[in-house]
Amino acid sequence: MTIMAFQDNYPEDLSHCYGCGKNNPHGHQLKSYWDDDETIALFTPKPFHTAIPGFVYGGLIASLIDCHGTGSASAAAQRAFGSRDETPPRFVTAALNIDFLAPTPMGVELELRGVIREIKPKKVLLDITLSANGVICARGHMVAVKMPESMIS
Amino acid sequence: MTIMAFQDNYPEDLSHCYGCGKNNPHGHQLKSYWDDDETIALFTPKPFHTAIPGFVYGGLIASLIDCHGTGSASAAAQRAFGSRDETPPRFVTAALNIDFLAPTPMGVELELRGVIREIKPKKVLLDITLSANGVICARGHMVAVKMPESMIS
Repeated sequence: MTIMAFQDNYPEDLSHCYGCGKNNPHGHQLKSYWDDDETIALFTPKPFHTAIPGFVYGGLIASLIDCHGTGSASAAAQRAFGSRDETPPRFVTAALNIDFLAPTPMGVELELRGVIREIKPKKVLLDITLSANGVICARGHMVAVKMPESMIS
Repeated sequence: MTIMAFQDNYPEDLSHCYGCGKNNPHGHQLKSYWDDDETIALFTPKPFHTAIPGFVYGGLIASLIDCHGTGSASAAAQRAFGSRDETPPRFVTAALNIDFLAPTPMGVELELRGVIREIKPKKVLLDITLSANGVICARGHMVAVKMPESMIS
């Protein structure tokens, strides 16, 4: 059995996100999964994703936390309120707070871990860490909300 | 007289940031300037910088706010504490909080505006807005700190 990433369950016409959409060939195509009750994603930055030489630029860190967060919110909402046959709801970010705790080194696979803190059908609060070599480099807190119908046309 | 962007005053060996480094040919090369006591930067996303079709992905918004913020902190610290002949200090982000207020439309030049809230030699607090067509789509609050010597080698 192939385990599908959260993002690979998004509807085809909502799968163009630069951070995580499978239909965006230019983008990062981040893939997130369950790991027991937490969520996990792995990503190795490209050599040009630098801040200053040797370290990953903050915008990529924010992007990975953001996309792992909305993916985790989608999967958590489906697990809590949906059925297996339904397409998971798509979530967007209302608020993203990131503390950069240590410089993130280049040349290393980064691990994102999400913990769902509160879940309602249209709103999910979650915490996400980004680690390199087992050291937490950034910690994010997110408010994700169900994508408004007005964005889907 | 040519007005140089904040980022073009960074030292050559600290100018590789994907978001704003002039020495990163793959990156966004964001350019920030003074506009009276505020700071300003303009940026038009590429067609592939989508969230869902029609809107800009959150990671780019975070990246632009982040790089405009550290650039603004650098310029503000130099204006407050440095001399014109000195190379401005380089700042990094300690905390980045973003509220996404409205979807950011594609195909539009985005305007970033920074307001310095508090300034010390090694720490700058600032607020940044990102607008499209005159509408504020995202609002960021940042804590920027002077780059630690340990990051420069």
